[in-house]
Amino acid sequence: MPIVRLEIANGIASTEQKKAVIRRMTDVLVEELGRNPEYIFVVIDEVETDNWGRKGQSLTELWQEREARTGKEEP
Amino acid sequence: MPIVRLEIANGIASTEQKKAVIRRMTDVLVEELGRNPEYIFVVIDEVETDNWGRKGQSLTELWQEREARTGKEEP
Amino acid sequence: MPIVRLEIANGIASTEQKKAVIRRMTDVLVEELGRNPEYIFVVIDEVETDNWGRKGQSLTELWQEREARTGKEEP
Amino acid sequence: MPIVRLEIANGIASTEQKKAVIRRMTDVLVEELGRNPEYIFVVIDEVETDNWGRKGQSLTELWQEREARTGKEEP
Amino acid sequence: MPIVRLEIANGIASTEQKKAVIRRMTDVLVEELGRNPEYIFVVIDEVETDNWGRKGQSLTELWQEREARTGKEEP
Amino acid sequence: MPIVRLEIANGIASTEQKKAVIRRMTDVLVEELGRNPEYIFVVIDEVETDNWGRKGQSLTELWQEREARTGKEEP
Repeated sequence: MPIVRLEIANGIASTEQKKAVIRRMTDVLVEELGRNPEYIFVVIDEVETDNWGRKGQSLTELWQEREARTGKEEP
Repeated sequence: MPIVRLEIANGIASTEQKKAVIRRMTDVLVEELGRNPEYIFVVIDEVETDNWGRKGQSLTELWQEREARTGKEEP
Repeated sequence: MPIVRLEIANGIASTEQKKAVIRRMTDVLVEELGRNPEYIFVVIDEVETDNWGRKGQSLTELWQEREARTGKEEP
Repeated sequence: MPIVRLEIANGIASTEQKKAVIRRMTDVLVEELGRNPEYIFVVIDEVETDNWGRKGQSLTELWQEREARTGKEEP
Repeated sequence: MPIVRLEIANGIASTEQKKAVIRRMTDVLVEELGRNPEYIFVVIDEVETDNWGRKGQSLTELWQEREARTGKEEP
Repeated sequence: MPIVRLEIANGIASTEQKKAVIRRMTDVLVEELGRNPEYIFVVIDEVETDNWGRKGQSLTELWQEREARTGKEEP
């Protein structure tokens, strides 16, 4: 009866993409660990980019810098 | 100084119900473990049904299927 | 299908006490929120007192200070 | 590659304050544990005051009582 | 830069199985959400069966009952 | 009444280093957010390197590869 908890930045996944992630993460636990899917939970937490930091900066800042540098928009 | 973290589907609990859950979960830890309520924290996380999966499907899908089958609305 | 996650200091609960906590936390969610116990999960995490801090000190330190002051042993 | 997860009551921190917290928490892990900031994640979760309990009451209630008592507004 | 956190019962996965889970969960996030694997973290938490409850009983109890009933050993 | 949860690889921090991290993380929340240290909790979770993955490999593997490449031991 595993629990998967997934944290991703808000805005990077559509409802359809989240469905696919839930289905495939469940499959991994069934196929690799032989778990019963009836009791496999997947919880997705979508985190605002102001609330997620890496190397001391918020994701909002990191993505703005990257866009300025590459002209490529995130996500 | 225990911490309780509760994840429930969004929309299944009113403010009054959440108050009751906080009060009773705290009581459990006072009565069973002898903890000081001053330092017992309870945090409730209400998860969107698109973001919660069981047996490879989102709660949104599972509840729609159940409603179609039983005519009984969730939650 | 709620998930309860409980963090307590290591050593404060016996196996019997943990059973009681699991049973009663589940009851709270059945009685207050009408949830199906089949899918109610409770996970207990027992944290070493060196790894738990409050007001800037580890629980190990806080409990030693309290014992020195009160002669009463923790937990 | 540490992960920091911070739970605070919703409304107590501005975007600028959250930036400062992310930067300084990262510094702590670089300076005290010698970790590489490239892989230090900080995730901030802002919890509604109805969803946070202490000593059996929600933060909403606790703060209202305190304001009634002290005339000082929270946070 | 997603974070996956997986809780499983202690003893159900070998080191090789955990490697496979880490690799495949990462692949899901690369393939479905286009994330950069450099910053995909997977953390596995192995929970003692005394510390995991479902429908009000510990996994230790649930598995003993099942073994008594089916003669089939868990996990 | 914030809660900080810190996940680090097992073995990278001594008891003294963990004390310093608890003290300084608490200070950050007092100084930046004006919180009362009485109710600031810090919980450190030390994760086995077999149970922590990045870019699809366990930390055990990643560190072995790095040591083979650089001759420099982790952590």
